[in-house]
This record gives sequence, C-alpha cells and structure tokens, in this order.
Amino acid sequence: MIYLDNAATTLKKPPEVAAAVVKAMETMGNADRGSHGGALAAARPVYACREALKELFHAPGADHVVFTQNATEALNIAISGTLAPGDHVVTTDLEHNSVLRPLYRLEAERGVKLSFAAPDACGHVSPSAIEALIRPDTRAIICTHASNLTGEVIDIEAVGRIAKARDLLFIVDASQTAGALPIDMERMGIGILCFTGHKGLMGPQGTGGLCIGEGVEIRPFKTGGSGIHSFSKTQPEAYPTRLEAGTLNGHGIAGLGAAVDHILKTGVDAIGQREEMLMRRFYEGVSGIEGVTVYGDFSGRRRAAIVALNIRDMDSAEVSDILSEAYGIATRPGAHCAPRMHEALGTREQGAVRFSFSYYNTEADADAAINAVKELAEG
Amino acid sequence: MIYLDNAATTLKKPPEVAAAVVKAMETMGNADRGSHGGALAAARPVYACREALKELFHAPGADHVVFTQNATEALNIAISGTLAPGDHVVTTDLEHNSVLRPLYRLEAERGVKLSFAAPDACGHVSPSAIEALIRPDTRAIICTHASNLTGEVIDIEAVGRIAKARDLLFIVDASQTAGALPIDMERMGIGILCFTGHKGLMGPQGTGGLCIGEGVEIRPFKTGGSGIHSFSKTQPEAYPTRLEAGTLNGHGIAGLGAAVDHILKTGVDAIGQREEMLMRRFYEGVSGIEGVTVYGDFSGRRRAAIVALNIRDMDSAEVSDILSEAYGIATRPGAHCAPRMHEALGTREQGAVRFSFSYYNTEADADAAINAVKELAEG
Repeated sequence: MIYLDNAATTLKKPPEVAAAVVKAMETMGNADRGSHGGALAAARPVYACREALKELFHAPGADHVVFTQNATEALNIAISGTLAPGDHVVTTDLEHNSVLRPLYRLEAERGVKLSFAAPDACGHVSPSAIEALIRPDTRAIICTHASNLTGEVIDIEAVGRIAKARDLLFIVDASQTAGALPIDMERMGIGILCFTGHKGLMGPQGTGGLCIGEGVEIRPFKTGGSGIHSFSKTQPEAYPTRLEAGTLNGHGIAGLGAAVDHILKTGVDAIGQREEMLMRRFYEGVSGIEGVTVYGDFSGRRRAAIVALNIRDMDSAEVSDILSEAYGIATRPGAHCAPRMHEALGTREQGAVRFSFSYYNTEADADAAINAVKELAEG
Repeated sequence: MIYLDNAATTLKKPPEVAAAVVKAMETMGNADRGSHGGALAAARPVYACREALKELFHAPGADHVVFTQNATEALNIAISGTLAPGDHVVTTDLEHNSVLRPLYRLEAERGVKLSFAAPDACGHVSPSAIEALIRPDTRAIICTHASNLTGEVIDIEAVGRIAKARDLLFIVDASQTAGALPIDMERMGIGILCFTGHKGLMGPQGTGGLCIGEGVEIRPFKTGGSGIHSFSKTQPEAYPTRLEAGTLNGHGIAGLGAAVDHILKTGVDAIGQREEMLMRRFYEGVSGIEGVTVYGDFSGRRRAAIVALNIRDMDSAEVSDILSEAYGIATRPGAHCAPRMHEALGTREQGAVRFSFSYYNTEADADAAINAVKELAEG
C-alpha cells in the first residue's frame, strides 16, 4: 500500500516509537500514583515528553504541557474552558469540526457569538481578513494553522501580533502542522496551542494535548483523581494536573516522547522541506492533467503537505475507492470534517480526494499517485 | 520488583496485548476515516474490541460500547451527560474522586443534590443503606462496584434491583472489578457501566469506556470530528459516535481487544478466584501480626483483591517507601483519591498502605509481602 492519508494519521512512525511503547508496557506503573519503581518508571517518560514538547513548541514550561486523548479533546478543553457567555470569537472557514462544533455548542448554550473569516478565491485566509472581524466584545481568535482539506496555511505569526495588539486570547489548532512547520508559542503570541500526537508528530494514536501560555487560565473540563490533594472537592489548581484527571495514556506518551525526540534530532525544517518537496512534486504532476481540479493556492506560499483534488464530476469516494483497490494508494475522500471549507469551494456534494504526504513517503509514491490520477482522468 | 500495585494499573499484561499494539502501530490508519486498507485495518480491531466488551459485560450491543481515555473520562461523561438541575443522586462514601469530583461540580454548578450512603463498622455499604436515601426527587444511583482503598464490594445486583423498582438510572464504576468479578449489565440492571482498560482488563493505558444500557440517553461531552455527517452543526446522534469525537486510541484499543479476548478465554471466574486466593493468603498472613491494622471486612463476602493496612502509627508513605527500597515490593500509600473512605476509617492523616493483586502474581509474591510487613511491624 502506498499510504497518502497522513493528514488522517501517519502510518509509518520512527522505529523508536513502537520500541518505547513496548518498553513502557513492560515497565510502567501508574505515573504520579505512588513512589515505587514502577510508578517512577512511568513518571519519567511522561515528564521527558513534556520537556520535549516544551522545546519543540517553545512553551513556557514542561508543566504547561497538558496531555489529552487527541487534538479534539484539547480543543474542547481550550474552547469551553476559556469562553464566557456573550464573548465574541473570530475564527475561520478553514476550521475542522473539532473547532466548529465546540464553538457552535457554546453559541447555542452560552450565547457565544461567532464570526468567520472567509477564504479568498485561492482558499487563503489572510490575517487582515481576521483582523477586520474584531469587535469591542471580541475575546479570542481561534484558528487552524493549516486547513486539513487543502493544506492552506494561515500566517499565525501575523495573527498572533494582531491578537497581542488587541489583547485577545489566541488559540491555534496545530493538528496539521505540528512536527512539520515551525511553531514558536512565544514569538507567535499563541495563548493555547492544541496538537495531536499521531499525525505529523509521528507518535501513537491516543495522544495529543495543549500547551498553555503564561498567565492563560483554563477551567477544568474533566474532574477526578489527581494523585495529589485528594481531600479537595475540586480539581487541583496547578497545571498540568488541573486539566489531567484520571490515568494518563502513559504507554502512548512514552511513544510520543520518542517521536518528538526523533523530530528534534531530525529537525522540523528538514521534515517540512521533505514533505513540501513531495507535495509539490505531486502537485506539478497532476495540476496540468485535463479534467483534474486542484483546490488551494500553490503559488509559493508555505503550505501543509496536502493536495486535494477532484477528477471531472466523479464522486470523490468513488475515486478514492478505485485508487485503493486498483492502485493500492490510500487517500481520503468526502468532507474531511471541514464543512465550511467545502461550502467555500463549492464541493459540498462531490467532496474531494485528499493526498497527504509524510516524511517517510518517497518520490516513487508521489509518481505512482500522479500516474494513477492521470489514468483515471483519461479513463 | 514484586508488583502489588495492580489497583493503580496492572503492570504485567498477557503477551498478546503488546503484540496487538505493535501490529496496530504497523498497519493501522485512522478508524472510521476513509475506506482504504489502512483505515479498514484500524476499524476492524476497534469493532472487535467493542464486540468483546459487549460479550464480557452483557451490553445491549457493540454500538453501545463507547471508548474513552480512562474510567475518569467515562464517569465525567456519564455523570455530566445525564443529570439535570435539581436532580438528587444517591452515592456512597466508598467512591473515588472520579465519581466525587464530577458530582461536587454539578452540586455547585447545577444544584444537583447528593446523599452519601455510609459504610458500617466493617467498611461495608449495604444496598439497604443506599435504598434508605432514595427520595421522590432522586434521579440516579451512582456507586462503585468495589472500593479502591479497601476492596469492599457493593452488591450491585441488589442495588440494580432497587434502581429498577424505583425507575432510577444506575451508574456503576467498575474500575476495580472489570475483568475479575462477573458483571452482567442486563441481569444487574446497570444503565451505564464505566470501566478502565489498564487495570483488571489488563489492557494498555489510555483505554477505557462506558457501556450504555438500552434507552439510556447521554448528552455529548466533547464534540468534534466524527467521520460522518460532517455538515451537521452538532455531534451525530447515534452511539458510539455521539460520545467519541476525535481520533480514537486505535493502537491502545487493539491491545485492549487482545486483553479482553484473553480474559474471555481464561474466564472471569478463574481470574477472580486466583486473585482472591492471593489476596486472602496475604490477609491471613498479616492480620494476626501485632501492630498491624487491616481495613475492611474479610469475613467471607466477595471482595476485590485489595488489602489496605497500617503498621502502628507509621506514616503510610514511609512504610510504602521502605517496602519499595528495602524489599523491592511496590505498593501504594496515601489517600488513593478516596477522601470520604479515609474519613470513615479515621485514616485521613495516616493514609493506608494498599497491597493489590493481579492474576499474574504468585503465592511467593504474597509470602514475601507478608514477611516484609512482619519485619516492619517487629522493627
């Protein structure tokens, strides 16, 4: 199988990752529960992973790295734990349902008000389009770093400057970029960074989290056992415990730590450049084929390693099925949980076929995919 | 290390478990996202695990098995997703903070009213003590199957009959019993069963969930991507998707499926009997030692494989440290996130040292622990 569905989850991980998970399963007790060898064997890799993520994202401290099951949980925590009734939020049409649905819920339940920055004809959302929506009652800007459908990147450094100047909380969904594009919370003025572990970070499924900027207060989402302050009726105040009720996915986090170490060693730039090269090679190969429509702006701007396309009026699910069955190429069709982006692109009914690349893909993978698209378009 | 902290997490898992996790990491795409080989390779073990858990707990259907990160998340979902302002809840002093804190939060935020059934002198909570607290405005009974501190079991079959007769929702926290004591949702009248994967089920950390009885409605806790109905502003209605926003811990769930298969093959009764034998062997060995206080009722009633004790007035953390450092025995001291139980036992300051056994412990483990307690008590 040629796996080009890396925006859903990366299939190939650095070999250290599975090794770290297996080691954890053989040696780990329950992190932060007890002081015997097994409990310490659990606490160490969990802490090491916080340190590695702090370094990767320039978070204020390892204790400001909170683990969750996935980016969706991180976004639910960030959104529901900071917004108050009547707050206005600026977000974008590029967002995934993991941002949209928590916001729609607060709109319905708490009277939070929403404004959506629309993409231009190329599918790009500019910082000035976001800035134009800010009002006196705006409390936060929430946006994705890159569209999971088209790979379009939002210039979060510029948005962060706007947020800082207006004293707004800036929440970033880095699901499609963490590990492949540079993210510097401090320099970019990010208040809360939400990430998943199993995509560009190349860690196990069941991992993700949020990095919390200095002075940002988030109310607990879940409450429960914390291993400390057991006699308090409420969740302990200190991060990360405030947001981490219950036993962590210690086994998965050990694997994520190994993955992030690998990324730090390899370098985000080297990874990103390789992914970009593969994505552009594929784009160059398919963009001129008659009957193929590629979505998004490939004019040279930095983007995530995603190419979404359609072949004539063929249903995207049908194309993806043929690619899988006749060519052994894994892609993803349909809506990709990005409803507003499909509305903007006019692809609500057809969906789109998404090809997404990872560090471990090869030029041959891209070429095989180009060839398959060509045959389908000619067929 | 002699590992007797299995009530925190089981360290030794059936060998199939790590093998299943590694296989998943090598082959799994994203479950329910796409239809290519990798996505199907992810969907199959996830579905198989739902089926296995349905069989183990006699849930109404595989689609009524919802995966979460841990039991704490399952309990947060069950408690916050069913109770309305003004509802009265009967619960017990045996509960863990994963039940207590979500309830205290609803008490503060939604005016939910709470009554706690107290243990008798042996630490036992009888079904009649629970029944006596039911009022006309009672909406639910929420109780643990067994105390995580003393191992005391609540007769949930009898409590289930009471709940059924009064038409109350019955929520059970099976964190300490799933895999080792028989649980039959249908026969026991359980409306929502919350479980963790990494304790008695002997699966990976980062797994757990809830089984939902026929006709029980739970509001979504997290919202986000669901892989289906992407254009809906709210989370899809159907279980399990209603409660499973975001990418599942597919790797961990593959391991949990292997663990539950192992349990179904070995038999819950065989596992429970072995754990009970080890626990009683240890109890018999330590209960007569001068200066040792054992908590709970060992008169013959069924109990979880836990023995909590103190040695004279020694701080429990000090005892646990010595056991770890001088004897290589892993136990857990302190409060165990069970504040009301410590208040009832009068051990708020001292805490207690908890010895907890798994299927993989041996008689030699129990005997070594007896000997260590004896030496410490004589010292």
